[in-house]
Amino acid sequence: MFCVIGERINTSRKKVQEAVAKRNSAYIQEDVKMQQEAGANYIDVNAGARIGHEMEDMEWLVNVIQEVVTIPLCLDSPDPDVLEMAYGIVNEPPLINSISMERDRYDAMIPFIKGKDCKIVALCMDDSGMPASAQDIIDRAKRIVFELENAGMKRNSIYVDPLVQPISTDTSKGIMVLESVKGILRELPEVHITGGISNISYGLPQRRIINRTFTSLMMAAGMDSAIIDPLDQALMATIKTTEMILGKDDFCAKYLKAVRAKMKTG
Amino acid sequence: MFCVIGERINTSRKKVQEAVAKRNSAYIQEDVKMQQEAGANYIDVNAGARIGHEMEDMEWLVNVIQEVVTIPLCLDSPDPDVLEMAYGIVNEPPLINSISMERDRYDAMIPFIKGKDCKIVALCMDDSGMPASAQDIIDRAKRIVFELENAGMKRNSIYVDPLVQPISTDTSKGIMVLESVKGILRELPEVHITGGISNISYGLPQRRIINRTFTSLMMAAGMDSAIIDPLDQALMATIKTTEMILGKDDFCAKYLKAVRAKMKTG
Repeated sequence: MFCVIGERINTSRKKVQEAVAKRNSAYIQEDVKMQQEAGANYIDVNAGARIGHEMEDMEWLVNVIQEVVTIPLCLDSPDPDVLEMAYGIVNEPPLINSISMERDRYDAMIPFIKGKDCKIVALCMDDSGMPASAQDIIDRAKRIVFELENAGMKRNSIYVDPLVQPISTDTSKGIMVLESVKGILRELPEVHITGGISNISYGLPQRRIINRTFTSLMMAAGMDSAIIDPLDQALMATIKTTEMILGKDDFCAKYLKAVRAKMKTG
Repeated sequence: MFCVIGERINTSRKKVQEAVAKRNSAYIQEDVKMQQEAGANYIDVNAGARIGHEMEDMEWLVNVIQEVVTIPLCLDSPDPDVLEMAYGIVNEPPLINSISMERDRYDAMIPFIKGKDCKIVALCMDDSGMPASAQDIIDRAKRIVFELENAGMKRNSIYVDPLVQPISTDTSKGIMVLESVKGILRELPEVHITGGISNISYGLPQRRIINRTFTSLMMAAGMDSAIIDPLDQALMATIKTTEMILGKDDFCAKYLKAVRAKMKTG
């Protein structure tokens, strides 16, 4: 089943930051209830934007969100101390967002993940910057997966993020990441593939059709998760439709249920 | 470049049949001008629905259509005599729709295509019925391509139609045809892949989102042509977007042009 990580609770979004600053739990709870209702499998929680407040903002958000949703959280922070605190108060094993091969970040995260019951997003990023080819992405994915396995993670708990790059400056970037997903899954069929997808359309108009068409192509390549806005109805309809076409919706049951619920497609 | 074969001029459509019966050339000409304007690369012409009138209806249609469009025609008939007549009056080398491995149909068509300057749609259909697996489709494609080559056709003039089947009765039919396209192009990279795509959604509601999502996945698999309604704006927008994501739109120029022309996406 495709795993939707709802990206809306991020203090870099103005309304979320205002709600967090005022401790407006009603606003946050309404948002996450809608995300769960729309089909999110995780609620991503990023409290990083109010400098100096991440620890208490994350703690408040996790508690407020868990009062109203049953799905697990995706704890989105580069700070192992924040993650350690949040891990201590989550009701369900979380997804950790994220670790990378950047040496400082990797070294800081490893002590946190040791012995934890969690899944983790592994970015194909290292100290040399963004990957430059499909093979580069595949090589990075293998390195970080092998290192995480050495640190005790199970391969099927790792969500590899191949790092989607914009096609506006280089039209080969779409094919590059699509081929990388196929290549990663040829070599490491047990891992999951996830990532933000909206980077693909950066700098172009009418971004939503690009994002949803790209999501569909990434799913055909093997991506089984994405960090997206579950309230984008046309995107969610495209995901359901793609799962059905790819043979992952027995009797077309989920698709038909979505149509009955007045699925919006454009 | 993706090749759009506009399917609208078909006497099985009620309004087209009325226009043909009344020799209402204005109706037909308005329709095909819109198809060309919308980006069609061929106008499919099917005059088969008025029993006993196909020959004169096809002749009238070909002449009326060619008065107003510059793109070539796709002559859509199982009758070699009708095709012979139409071939004699077309301005540009046509696409012939279609030949299959059904023995009677094949034997009837071969004398017509010998020595003709045309392209041809080759259906993966034989006397045993519809194909049952991806490998079956690939095997049929190879057989008909080799036979057509023996009859003098060039491989890159052949548009293989893998025969899209509905997922409503068997959800594996989407994957089956997607895998068949990849397999055909692995073995016969010079051929084109085309076909009607709306069969995929037969028996399901909200067919347009299924059709356009499927088209996008088929393009990623290698399909480079389709028999569709060019006036379906969301479908045409999806095709342009998919070409851009697949790296076939330098500087995103065609996509940006479509956006400027108020492309509709839903």
